[in-house]
Amino acid sequence: MTEFNDKQTDILQTAEKLFAEEGFDGTSIRSIAKEAGVNIAMISYYFGSKEKLLEALIMYRTSGMKMQLETIFKEDLSPLEKVNRLVDLYISRINKNKCMYQIMHFELSTKKRIMNMESFMEVKKQNSEIFKKIIEEGQEQGIFTKNVNIALIPTTILGTLVHFRSNRLYYEKTMQLDTEETFESYVTNELTQHIKQTIKALLLHEN
Amino acid sequence: MTEFNDKQTDILQTAEKLFAEEGFDGTSIRSIAKEAGVNIAMISYYFGSKEKLLEALIMYRTSGMKMQLETIFKEDLSPLEKVNRLVDLYISRINKNKCMYQIMHFELSTKKRIMNMESFMEVKKQNSEIFKKIIEEGQEQGIFTKNVNIALIPTTILGTLVHFRSNRLYYEKTMQLDTEETFESYVTNELTQHIKQTIKALLLHEN
Repeated sequence: MTEFNDKQTDILQTAEKLFAEEGFDGTSIRSIAKEAGVNIAMISYYFGSKEKLLEALIMYRTSGMKMQLETIFKEDLSPLEKVNRLVDLYISRINKNKCMYQIMHFELSTKKRIMNMESFMEVKKQNSEIFKKIIEEGQEQGIFTKNVNIALIPTTILGTLVHFRSNRLYYEKTMQLDTEETFESYVTNELTQHIKQTIKALLLHEN
Repeated sequence: MTEFNDKQTDILQTAEKLFAEEGFDGTSIRSIAKEAGVNIAMISYYFGSKEKLLEALIMYRTSGMKMQLETIFKEDLSPLEKVNRLVDLYISRINKNKCMYQIMHFELSTKKRIMNMESFMEVKKQNSEIFKKIIEEGQEQGIFTKNVNIALIPTTILGTLVHFRSNRLYYEKTMQLDTEETFESYVTNELTQHIKQTIKALLLHEN
């Protein structure tokens, strides 16, 4: 896990806020330095370019995930309890890292490649391997069906949540979730429950 | 359903291509006119502003969906066959309208509101009501569980697909889908199969 000192953490959090508000192109090292109360030379010294700063931000936000997945894997819980914990973990990480996912989503959807995604994808791949081990454990115990595409389960968990957030305007209107509080409460309760129920049904239902 | 003449259709398709390539802000009415081989006055006459042109594009792309949903609802098929048809319909529409979804996604994720989403959301709401009727039919026949959040099923279908496409770079790398052909074949086969299996399990599994 990459470690950052307090000053680096300040800079990363400031950059995240500005990238989300103004976009990557709309944010300068100068504006990050001003907002974080440091000088430009310090940012360059710690991170190099603005592109490298974005890479560091993504590593900062994803590197804790692996440890948490390993903790769930090792715990003395039933396979189904572990899956519920996995869903909670994925959801809480997206909820906490809303800004970063917005930046990354934008980044991944534009053709112009501004950053090196290699290190991020490597962490993500390691995470999906631990995820796979947890599901396989339940399959070996005869609890989960073997007829399932494990690699696509995180896609369904994250996709459902991200799609709900991206179409917030639509759900706000049709589900009367027009305050920040009712919307976030729906995510935490009904949406999380729907995702857990979906993944549970997929793993327990024999085809 | 909104009807467009051939010339209007040309303009809409050209605009869609340019919005997806250059972004909404990066595309001018002038560049759309040039690429479509019409004059600026004609675009203004048909659509008014660039914002209105984007609204028309979205209506053009979504208005056919309602009719297709109604066709599925009325057909002489089992509830489960209807659900498989629904999944196919949602997936094929997203696959066909990749560009538009990219524009809309970007549009919905920025705070700056450039268009009036009311008419689009109204169509989407009507579509989700037909979807609901199809699921309820299966529930009344005792085939589907009643313990399910129907409004979130399209979220899971679309979310899984959109998330897979948005993270193309990652899946290309981890699943060895490095040509356009292998990637699209995976979407049509494995991913579609995973989504159908997930929705089927959710509807058939009693909690």
